[in-house]
Amino acid sequence: MNKTKEKVNAAIVIIGNEILSGRTQDVNLVNITKWLNELGVKLEEVRVIPDTENSIIQTVKELKKNFNYVFTTGGIGPTHDDITSKSIAKAFNLSYGYHEEAYKILRKYYGKAKFSSGRKKMAMIPTKASLILNPSSGAPGFIVDNVYCLPGVPSILKSMLGGLNNKIRGGKKILSKTISAQTVESEIAESLEKVQNNFKKVEIGSYPFFRLGKIGVSFVIRSTEKKQIDDCHKQIISFLKRKKIYIIER
Amino acid sequence: MNKTKEKVNAAIVIIGNEILSGRTQDVNLVNITKWLNELGVKLEEVRVIPDTENSIIQTVKELKKNFNYVFTTGGIGPTHDDITSKSIAKAFNLSYGYHEEAYKILRKYYGKAKFSSGRKKMAMIPTKASLILNPSSGAPGFIVDNVYCLPGVPSILKSMLGGLNNKIRGGKKILSKTISAQTVESEIAESLEKVQNNFKKVEIGSYPFFRLGKIGVSFVIRSTEKKQIDDCHKQIISFLKRKKIYIIER
Repeated sequence: MNKTKEKVNAAIVIIGNEILSGRTQDVNLVNITKWLNELGVKLEEVRVIPDTENSIIQTVKELKKNFNYVFTTGGIGPTHDDITSKSIAKAFNLSYGYHEEAYKILRKYYGKAKFSSGRKKMAMIPTKASLILNPSSGAPGFIVDNVYCLPGVPSILKSMLGGLNNKIRGGKKILSKTISAQTVESEIAESLEKVQNNFKKVEIGSYPFFRLGKIGVSFVIRSTEKKQIDDCHKQIISFLKRKKIYIIER
Repeated sequence: MNKTKEKVNAAIVIIGNEILSGRTQDVNLVNITKWLNELGVKLEEVRVIPDTENSIIQTVKELKKNFNYVFTTGGIGPTHDDITSKSIAKAFNLSYGYHEEAYKILRKYYGKAKFSSGRKKMAMIPTKASLILNPSSGAPGFIVDNVYCLPGVPSILKSMLGGLNNKIRGGKKILSKTISAQTVESEIAESLEKVQNNFKKVEIGSYPFFRLGKIGVSFVIRSTEKKQIDDCHKQIISFLKRKKIYIIER
């Protein structure tokens, strides 16, 4: 009865005024997504929201209903603008305060003498949350129900994902193949649409590129079924050849 | 009566399976945001959604009510996965078909002989939309009400923003100052919170960084009021000096 679910989906909530202000280029999204792909979890929505209690509560409440997993990034540090933990507690109507295990971990990490009130704040999370261990800088993330709260600093976030592998129950892995060809989208639009119509369960994306002064289009074929991808790949290659379009990569 | 509004806000909708799959690192967000900052428009939410009609319609319907401006990126090209124009027409209950002016522009750009059906598709938008001219590759974007539809290719998108300057009515420009210091967040959290409490209308963010092997924290002060920023800046500098923390940049 332990059948792999066909589709498992996720949403990411990036909590960060620094992204909305244009100050910082987000990189966490790509890192989480690649990790999710490996686990067979399909990312279906991302939201970037401000560091305000109301926006965090409303967004998390909405997304946790609609997706199997929700990941939040940012706002779990020691400063006044780190309000994710408190907001998540409110979103779930849970008590917020020192989490026994998190407190122990942080006191051990900093040593009793250097365990200042700022640092103690990082142990304040929903008191019944499970922890996400942090191998690079002590302060843990946490899990409430299907919501996984991670830090905003990319290197730290990345170091914490591996520890979550056995907590995420993915579906079939999403496979992909890419073809790149020297053409423009309008030249292949009709043929590509015909191929898409032959493979309703395959996602075909076409993306124009400008590389080393040359223009081209990449075709990305995604599906959980290898055979479908292979067949779809063949049909695209076939119309490219028929049209005498130079294939850069297949 | 032509008073500048205190606050004008915006949301961005990134329509793109290629971002959700982790294949492509989005850069349009940063470019649009920096441009909005200059115009005095505050970005308050971003959503990345799949190339599906339902998600585009639902997301745009929701955001156009809650924000002064909504910008969409992606999905206005010639291929089967470009469904933004049709979906926007549906979201607004507008007729969708060849837009007279867009058709003329594209026919002129490609020449009558090379104006293929794929290329003609790019002239299919809500028929009563205003156009956003495209100085780099012909195919225009379009505006319906407060929703601005832009392409996904970063270089093309960027080239189209300038032409919109006189269509966006911004509020007071958001100003900012940054201080960087050799410290860790937990060391300054309390002092910083006190400063934040003194300046309720200033947004103070603190962001840890690791640069050239050194750790530090950047403080970003944002407000529409220069004097408030300056006063806030002084108070942060003052507690950093009191704590004998090395100031890298101010």
